Amino acid sequence: MSIFEVKIPRRRDCQLMDMADPLRVLRHQFVLPPDTIYLDGNSLGVLPKATTARVADVVTREWGEDLITSWNKNGWFDAPRRIGDKIAQLIGAAAGEVVATDTTSINLYKVLSTAMTIAAQNSTTRRVIVSERGNFPTDLYIAQALCAERGFQLHLIDQTELTTALNSDVAVLMLTHVNYRTGFMHDMESVTAAAHHAGALTVWDLAHSAGAVPVDLHAALADFAVGCGYKYLNGGPGAPAFVWVHPQHAERFWQPLAGWWGHAAPFAFSPQYQPAAGISRFLCGTQSMLGMAALECGVDTLLAAQVHGGMAALRKKSLALSDLFIQLVEHRCGGYGLEVVTPQEHSLRGSQASFAHSKGAYAIMQALIARKVIGDFRAGAAGGTVADGEDILRFGFTPLYLGFDEVWQAVEHLRQVLESGEWKAEKFMQKLAVT
Amino acid sequence: MSIFEVKIPRRRDCQLMDMADPLRVLRHQFVLPPDTIYLDGNSLGVLPKATTARVADVVTREWGEDLITSWNKNGWFDAPRRIGDKIAQLIGAAAGEVVATDTTSINLYKVLSTAMTIAAQNSTTRRVIVSERGNFPTDLYIAQALCAERGFQLHLIDQTELTTALNSDVAVLMLTHVNYRTGFMHDMESVTAAAHHAGALTVWDLAHSAGAVPVDLHAALADFAVGCGYKYLNGGPGAPAFVWVHPQHAERFWQPLAGWWGHAAPFAFSPQYQPAAGISRFLCGTQSMLGMAALECGVDTLLAAQVHGGMAALRKKSLALSDLFIQLVEHRCGGYGLEVVTPQEHSLRGSQASFAHSKGAYAIMQALIARKVIGDFRAGAAGGTVADGEDILRFGFTPLYLGFDEVWQAVEHLRQVLESGEWKAEKFMQKLAVT
Repeated sequence: MSIFEVKIPRRRDCQLMDMADPLRVLRHQFVLPPDTIYLDGNSLGVLPKATTARVADVVTREWGEDLITSWNKNGWFDAPRRIGDKIAQLIGAAAGEVVATDTTSINLYKVLSTAMTIAAQNSTTRRVIVSERGNFPTDLYIAQALCAERGFQLHLIDQTELTTALNSDVAVLMLTHVNYRTGFMHDMESVTAAAHHAGALTVWDLAHSAGAVPVDLHAALADFAVGCGYKYLNGGPGAPAFVWVHPQHAERFWQPLAGWWGHAAPFAFSPQYQPAAGISRFLCGTQSMLGMAALECGVDTLLAAQVHGGMAALRKKSLALSDLFIQLVEHRCGGYGLEVVTPQEHSLRGSQASFAHSKGAYAIMQALIARKVIGDFRAGAAGGTVADGEDILRFGFTPLYLGFDEVWQAVEHLRQVLESGEWKAEKFMQKLAVT
Repeated sequence: MSIFEVKIPRRRDCQLMDMADPLRVLRHQFVLPPDTIYLDGNSLGVLPKATTARVADVVTREWGEDLITSWNKNGWFDAPRRIGDKIAQLIGAAAGEVVATDTTSINLYKVLSTAMTIAAQNSTTRRVIVSERGNFPTDLYIAQALCAERGFQLHLIDQTELTTALNSDVAVLMLTHVNYRTGFMHDMESVTAAAHHAGALTVWDLAHSAGAVPVDLHAALADFAVGCGYKYLNGGPGAPAFVWVHPQHAERFWQPLAGWWGHAAPFAFSPQYQPAAGISRFLCGTQSMLGMAALECGVDTLLAAQVHGGMAALRKKSLALSDLFIQLVEHRCGGYGLEVVTPQEHSLRGSQASFAHSKGAYAIMQALIARKVIGDFRAGAAGGTVADGEDILRFGFTPLYLGFDEVWQAVEHLRQVLESGEWKAEKFMQKLAVT
């Protein structure tokens, strides 16, 4: 597909697209930062309007007035399951199969260790975990620690080496569905089938998928999945994460973080651990009820899309937004060294668009942020592929609240930043400790 | 000490004690539930007044307006260390030695597994974890899972067997400082010394100690400690917990939950885990900022006591409150089968008073709750000591906000409940799922 074969949208065209957008109404669920184009919902989703009052209610009434009676009266104890059931609707899981709890890293530890336990029982030789070099680092760190503890090997590959890496030594294939840097999306169904054909279990990280792209864990025959609450689910900073385990695996073993919330009868205070049935055993300790309340409001903003076509409609809009962005950047920002690293092919793309820039990615993003166009910078990972090795600018497209005119404006700002060279100012070149 | 040797306080005496109480002013920091006597701050601390506005500010301004810039601008990323430094002041730890993070269960997993790793490196034969049968169950569950994984044995003892249990097989002594049921408090310094003399490391759970009794981890030469944010620290339902590691151990090994927040350079996105210096490596994933904000407000209510004598003054009042409660119950509620299980000896008592009742503990507590006197029921643990094996009524005394007149009134309600026999009504006998 060449850009010369298609008409390049003007700003007026984008405004008309917004007017014709059937999902536009969903935007009113959110407090959008004024005069800002927020293309970072894949780092931290924006604040839903309902959240402010809901969190205040948890603080003042549920905690302040009802105190410990809230464990029953206000559904605190069941919150991880209740919210898990809602998330399940977004990822092709059934009710009772997901809990919202802890962090993505910790949930990954629970499921990866369980997958390793199953693999160790099934085979005396399979002792390799395969993952991508460009996977989100915390996933690799968790795997490194577990491999060191259990005498497994972590084999890091490039995305293109996937099929050849799945040999008879592999116990678990651990992948992030949509890559946090490049936006590349795996075909979950075919990759899972390849892993199973090779005798390996699959662990999927849905951090950049849940609420962003359609996911069907059961259709893919996936084994384990974890995901993040504060990106596309709009659950707020450090929101509880979630974990799913296929029912065929859920009750086979204890998960190692065998805390009292995962006990079959937590309030019996038995000295002997007895895991709860199903996914509840993947709970561990007492959960933040403020975090849970905000997460539930965030998930509800996605469930509100169900009457408008749900994840399929959101996906259609998301692709239209990222198509538009890539097309406009290619047409209007050529000659400045930006190289798109996100696949143009829809089936391989998540809900973002990333561009490598050999020297200026950080400063260009800082200059955009100064203009209130908020995206992300991600440093190139040493030892990665060509794309992984370069610094990138990352733009996330959240179809719940982003419009086509905003995409047009964002690209116009990017064009001005590049054309003026304003990003070369010293103030934009100095890196902050946390970006 | 016999109750007949001392004058039994009348209600007027208690009111005068409140008027003379130099800590009385601290009560005004809290939203106290109206017409309620709350003796359950050891289950869930009450709401500090400052928390409501602070949490709202995190939601609307920090999240809603500042969005991802809050990681730097509003101190999100350093919150676990900043709040950890405050908690350190309450438990005899130094700045930079504590982080607020995750849950008590998960933090226990981190430190117990690290202690086991150290023990395994020091000795080929020490493979026993000693703990109490009456320890809080989640601690035992975590230990059971780790023992099963690593070929260790969990040896559960009665409190009286402690010294004889510390033999040359013991790798780690894992205890809760103040028992959640009985209120028995270990002498942390002498028990730690005995463990070290026997060649074992110590892991202390401070869930019922931090903010309740003076703790001096360095003076006790303790090795590892964890604790809870939502009890005496008033951090709100499911508040982040905390973890302390003696500096001599902190950097010796990876802890198993090696997530990106524990990395030396988390935003370098290196595929290789490299643990941060000091206690920061005991962080794992992204933390709930709503939970962190509420926890900080809660900890601040304790730091506000520092100008009034700090934990020593709070301890003095706490003992006066529990002394009064026990004395009044013995004098005014005799003959109804209540048996005090909390030690009368101050050095052995935490900040609570528990009473066994062979048949009516649950119903008596329900009848008290109906009168808005809020305490806790705890079921007898099978296989425990005589005291552990009986159902108990548990009353917590939080000197920050509880007064002597409230203690008098609580005992008067208890007397009326017992004398009238109203607790035998069917509505009080039926157990709820979660209590």
